[in-house]
Amino acid sequence: MVKKFRYKITLEYLGAGFCGWQRQAEALSVQELVEESIYKFSKEKVLVTAAGRTDAGVNAYGQVASFDLTTWHKPHNVMNSINHFCKPYKVGVVDCELVDDNFNARFSAKHRHYVYKILNRKGRNIINAGLQCWIRDPLDINLMIKGASYLIGKHDFTSFRAMQCQSSSPIKTISNIEIIRNGDNIEIYISAISFLHHMVRNIVGNLLEVGRGNWPPEKIKEILDLRDRNAGAPTAAAEGLYFLKVDYNANSGL
Amino acid sequence: MVKKFRYKITLEYLGAGFCGWQRQAEALSVQELVEESIYKFSKEKVLVTAAGRTDAGVNAYGQVASFDLTTWHKPHNVMNSINHFCKPYKVGVVDCELVDDNFNARFSAKHRHYVYKILNRKGRNIINAGLQCWIRDPLDINLMIKGASYLIGKHDFTSFRAMQCQSSSPIKTISNIEIIRNGDNIEIYISAISFLHHMVRNIVGNLLEVGRGNWPPEKIKEILDLRDRNAGAPTAAAEGLYFLKVDYNANSGL
Repeated sequence: MVKKFRYKITLEYLGAGFCGWQRQAEALSVQELVEESIYKFSKEKVLVTAAGRTDAGVNAYGQVASFDLTTWHKPHNVMNSINHFCKPYKVGVVDCELVDDNFNARFSAKHRHYVYKILNRKGRNIINAGLQCWIRDPLDINLMIKGASYLIGKHDFTSFRAMQCQSSSPIKTISNIEIIRNGDNIEIYISAISFLHHMVRNIVGNLLEVGRGNWPPEKIKEILDLRDRNAGAPTAAAEGLYFLKVDYNANSGL
Repeated sequence: MVKKFRYKITLEYLGAGFCGWQRQAEALSVQELVEESIYKFSKEKVLVTAAGRTDAGVNAYGQVASFDLTTWHKPHNVMNSINHFCKPYKVGVVDCELVDDNFNARFSAKHRHYVYKILNRKGRNIINAGLQCWIRDPLDINLMIKGASYLIGKHDFTSFRAMQCQSSSPIKTISNIEIIRNGDNIEIYISAISFLHHMVRNIVGNLLEVGRGNWPPEKIKEILDLRDRNAGAPTAAAEGLYFLKVDYNANSGL
């Protein structure tokens, strides 16, 4: 059996211009760009597995991915080599380490953290255009915090799940939702072991209706209980969403 | 005498690609872009006065400027019209109001606030490239806070002043310096009634040497006392600097 070396990389990327993390035949994915970059320096065709299969346009500060190489390279050189070939894109490796053969970026993940960024003001976004979701209507975050409280814990999230979601069960456990305002900037932090397809953006889309005052906070509980995606608000824009970080067991490294 | 209407606008802009706020014959300034945009909708050639004459590459979230028109327009329409003509650039008006004839964006300013943004990590900047200054060496912000403490208050800032500074006096009063770390992101907030040319970036450049551990915090006091720009560290990069906001007397509006 060929000896293999497993690498864990932490990726930062701007999702604009990509069809998402996962490879697709007709469009450029982050996965394809990273796999091609690994091939260019190692001449090895690898499969890169990610903790979060982010959607088209969704960004990441701390996406984690893993892959095997049959030749040993210094982690620092792996990072720099991938970055060299990713340079034309807003995609890059910010950390790289050798890990145990049992480590799998997707299946070893214990907890996933997202943040959704909003610019909440009348004037259009200028400096951070494309990096935040722009909401013109004034948002009351205290109402949003109240609405979000109904989602924390273990629930059937059918109402917040994309029609095309392939997960076998709609039951997920949200450990925390934190909503912070700093001037015109609002950040919504959401943490869970794992998420359904579009789940974070659907939660945000519904909380925006509460923040605008269109719905009372209690409507979030009603929608949750209905277990019907058609009961909820539209999915929030991809550009505001960031895959923030993943927690693993401390002993996953070598 | 022709009746005049004085407008106060709040501007957000990315400094990259501009020679700074002030008009120059050979390069595009933010001032020229805004004055041309005002001309395009009003057919009036105006002089726009800003609170802070930001340097080439320096950004602003809350630059304030004022100008006169001889025809009355709704402030909302003035804002939208300027934004329409500024749209190809990362420059825009985020607020506009009619103000008293005595108001002058520069001379009525009571207090100016800047923030300097740093990404402090080994890996290059990806998502926020061009929006922060990237410092690879680990920075100890507690040392920087200690170093900054020597600059608070009224001092002769000759050591932190650009050679080409045109201010009649090097005496300035810094009311506050706050340094905050959030993960790999560091923000340095500096407030004063007014600043000398390059003063914020020179202060940051010196604090970076302290943060790297190259200098003890006390060296900042030594440099200040020397009153010699050659005693200090290089000027920090323009891309990290943001003109944040200006305070005026509450009764400046109409």
